Amino acid sequence: MPGKLYGIGVGPGDPELLTLKAVRIIRECGVIFVPGEDYQDSVAYQIARQAVPEMERKTVIGVSVPMTRNKAERAAAHRQAAGQIFPWLDKGYEAGFLNLGDVTIYASYLYIHRLAVAQGYEAELVNGVPSFCAAAARLGTGLVEDAQQLHILPQPQQIREGLSLPGTRVIMKMGKNTGQVKLWLKESGQKIRMVERCGMQGEKVYHSADEIPEDASYYSLLIVGEQGQDDQ
Amino acid sequence: MPGKLYGIGVGPGDPELLTLKAVRIIRECGVIFVPGEDYQDSVAYQIARQAVPEMERKTVIGVSVPMTRNKAERAAAHRQAAGQIFPWLDKGYEAGFLNLGDVTIYASYLYIHRLAVAQGYEAELVNGVPSFCAAAARLGTGLVEDAQQLHILPQPQQIREGLSLPGTRVIMKMGKNTGQVKLWLKESGQKIRMVERCGMQGEKVYHSADEIPEDASYYSLLIVGEQGQDDQ
Repeated sequence: MPGKLYGIGVGPGDPELLTLKAVRIIRECGVIFVPGEDYQDSVAYQIARQAVPEMERKTVIGVSVPMTRNKAERAAAHRQAAGQIFPWLDKGYEAGFLNLGDVTIYASYLYIHRLAVAQGYEAELVNGVPSFCAAAARLGTGLVEDAQQLHILPQPQQIREGLSLPGTRVIMKMGKNTGQVKLWLKESGQKIRMVERCGMQGEKVYHSADEIPEDASYYSLLIVGEQGQDDQ
Repeated sequence: MPGKLYGIGVGPGDPELLTLKAVRIIRECGVIFVPGEDYQDSVAYQIARQAVPEMERKTVIGVSVPMTRNKAERAAAHRQAAGQIFPWLDKGYEAGFLNLGDVTIYASYLYIHRLAVAQGYEAELVNGVPSFCAAAARLGTGLVEDAQQLHILPQPQQIREGLSLPGTRVIMKMGKNTGQVKLWLKESGQKIRMVERCGMQGEKVYHSADEIPEDASYYSLLIVGEQGQDDQ
């Protein structure tokens, strides 16, 4: 009988934010896949390894999942990744695929999951804490209260329209070339906070658009507006 | 020296979705507060008790946090709750306040947190898995991929405008009197899925607006639109 595939969210950076279930499933899996050519370079692997040290004695395999906008290229990469993973399921292994943050939110694993389900494999999504929740906690503030809306925007350019939405808006990946985005943010006059590398080494917090560096890390999360009704 | 206050997200229902940190902090706290007159009736308590059985030997205190829209009434209730909690901090106790889901998203604790910080107490937010992530995992689907936006709307009436937003939209609390909302959803022709009491006893899944009951549980979560690019 083929083994089961688990997409596992390992949370945003702090190894203590893994769930009990993520820890158990990682322990039970015979093989663990992580995004990245070399598994040692994988951020998700480095987080999980600290929470589940016995993972260092497991078979861990790096899977190349390029972040390209070219759909054909991306589909080919996912088929190739599936080709690395599925033979292990056929051999009866339970397999885990680690993902930064939560596995239902912008996770590379979701593509593999669909391919697995389409090919008749049993596959399960194991939740983790999303990075935007951790960033708010790091800032000591809530994201939303009461009737406030929460809008998660994965691309910095989306903030231009997003600025007119009611409630709290989160930009997931500020990244490089933030000049234009910073201008929009400054013009808006809205409350801005950013957390770079939340829960990881080199974590930094910014409290205004002006402070945001032009070459922010890929792991930067921007929170725009509301955040607490009487918050200063 | 006064003790520290922790707002702790216990996740959406499955006790295994508590984080390692939530478990550790609950163990370390000398007193635990939970929303509800009688702590035994508290959903957050019942979830955490299964993950941390030794909590049954701890001092657990129910705190009444009414869900009223009247701001003056609500502020008075929060001051009263703070009046129950802060004397324990003054006596040097580490205190935890449990919240369903994540503590940065529509959590009653956030009001107490602000009062605590304003009065000079040390207070920390400890993340949990939000209910909308768990609902998607239960459905075996992601919430968002690639450049898709995610919009979290806490009130069913907000879906009317929300239907025209791009990406995936989540209604947090469907609740009773869903008639008008069902009509809007049906007219929109968009993909609808709902999870009632996700991870709890009596969990149910619905796959169309027609199936949604008129008297859905308060713990109902509706997902509208996208959810996977090739998803069926």
